[in-house]
Amino acid sequence: MTDITEEERRDGRLLVIGGAENRTCGTGPLKEFVSLAGADQSRIVVVTTATEKPEQVAAEYAQVFHRLGVTSVTELRLPHRAVADSTDSLDVLRKATGVLFSGGDQSRIRSLVGSKANALLRQRLNGDGLVIAGTSAGATAMGRWMILGGDGHEVAASTVRIGPGLGLLDDVLIDMHFAERGRLPRLLSGIALDTLRLGVGIDEDTAIVVREGRFEVIGSGVVTIVDADQATVGYAECDDDPMALFDVRLHLLPAGCWFDMEQRKPWFGPVPAAEE
Amino acid sequence: MTDITEEERRDGRLLVIGGAENRTCGTGPLKEFVSLAGADQSRIVVVTTATEKPEQVAAEYAQVFHRLGVTSVTELRLPHRAVADSTDSLDVLRKATGVLFSGGDQSRIRSLVGSKANALLRQRLNGDGLVIAGTSAGATAMGRWMILGGDGHEVAASTVRIGPGLGLLDDVLIDMHFAERGRLPRLLSGIALDTLRLGVGIDEDTAIVVREGRFEVIGSGVVTIVDADQATVGYAECDDDPMALFDVRLHLLPAGCWFDMEQRKPWFGPVPAAEE
Repeated sequence: MTDITEEERRDGRLLVIGGAENRTCGTGPLKEFVSLAGADQSRIVVVTTATEKPEQVAAEYAQVFHRLGVTSVTELRLPHRAVADSTDSLDVLRKATGVLFSGGDQSRIRSLVGSKANALLRQRLNGDGLVIAGTSAGATAMGRWMILGGDGHEVAASTVRIGPGLGLLDDVLIDMHFAERGRLPRLLSGIALDTLRLGVGIDEDTAIVVREGRFEVIGSGVVTIVDADQATVGYAECDDDPMALFDVRLHLLPAGCWFDMEQRKPWFGPVPAAEE
Repeated sequence: MTDITEEERRDGRLLVIGGAENRTCGTGPLKEFVSLAGADQSRIVVVTTATEKPEQVAAEYAQVFHRLGVTSVTELRLPHRAVADSTDSLDVLRKATGVLFSGGDQSRIRSLVGSKANALLRQRLNGDGLVIAGTSAGATAMGRWMILGGDGHEVAASTVRIGPGLGLLDDVLIDMHFAERGRLPRLLSGIALDTLRLGVGIDEDTAIVVREGRFEVIGSGVVTIVDADQATVGYAECDDDPMALFDVRLHLLPAGCWFDMEQRKPWFGPVPAAEE
């Protein structure tokens, strides 16, 4: 859809925000998003598919982005598949330097999965330097699989509901409002069902900035990593009964910490100079 | 205080209950306690130091123990150190086959730490076959250190308050009402402050039955083990700020699972026959 020569190829960034990011004084994750997307030269598109109040949400983001010096802010509603496949929508996304998926209910984002808009976003992220952010519902939708809902304080199959996501970040399962809503049981339940996935739980006003298989943590909270690659799972007979889980690795990463998703290793940042 | 020859020596059991155990129909952890303490031949002492309503609590336990066939149930109030050092109190404890510490506020149990009653209980547990149980506040008091309070959803020094416990179970830090009250951040905070301790979080109506350095899980919930022996901690400058924690091992153990506290290894029970 866009022609990128090998010389022009540059990886984008993914900003996955745990929800409730500061939208009033323009600091934290949103400031980072604007900075990565081109500062005052950014052309930002706000995708409001997840929310039931798209006008209000778009206006709030327009206000904070204007405050951060951005003049070009466009709402893109994408209420269903046909719109997400339309030439008009693709034109809007093609011109963007930054795309933000708002919060709301992630079930509404399912209609975009596999659409032409979805394909264009993947392509522009992996070679055209596009910066994509998702917050709250928009955050969990970034993965190939997303958490659709569920709660409960035990780790059990019935504690989590999962469906296909936008596939902008493979092999991870993302949860958000993480510490604030005590969602470790839900994330562990999702990971117990597929231990090869990496669980990433993001607190409010906190984000991971992903590039080339690793990420940095920014914001005021913590990112919780659940790595069950070496774990043993004892499935219960009933979906409501707690599962046994042995040898899960847990990392808690506040701002400034980094994580390598391929090697599954955290470190205290920044990236060693030799590797940059 | 009691003379035990090497031939007579037999280890007791420790039952650590996560609180809110079934007290009406006499199943679960309390039934196990009575069974271990001698069934209908048990002589049970209920220590009500932690609660502000000792008469009511003692009456409740008396009722369920009577229902389980026990005729000898005695309340021991131990409101302060002098009573815990008295000959009368020691006589009561010396005759018991099972001692239960009730719930309430664990801060009240601090006055017993280091008392003659405390020493007698340690001695009778480690050689005289005494069965000791603690539930809720009485559970965390079993450790050499106990969690006195604190809450918060981040892992930070200010999230937990710790003080000396009865030392009936060394090298562990116990928390209770664990999944129900979302206490993993509190337990992780306590363990981050001393990574050599093993964190044991016990759900309601759930217990560990400890004997010779290992335990079995019984009851309807889960026991969460936090093992930070190989972990790296990044302490924050302020007590309120979240700490970084890398490489914590987490185990979730429902009923039937076992854990070896020395080797720090879980397994699906029972104990292999050759080892018994």
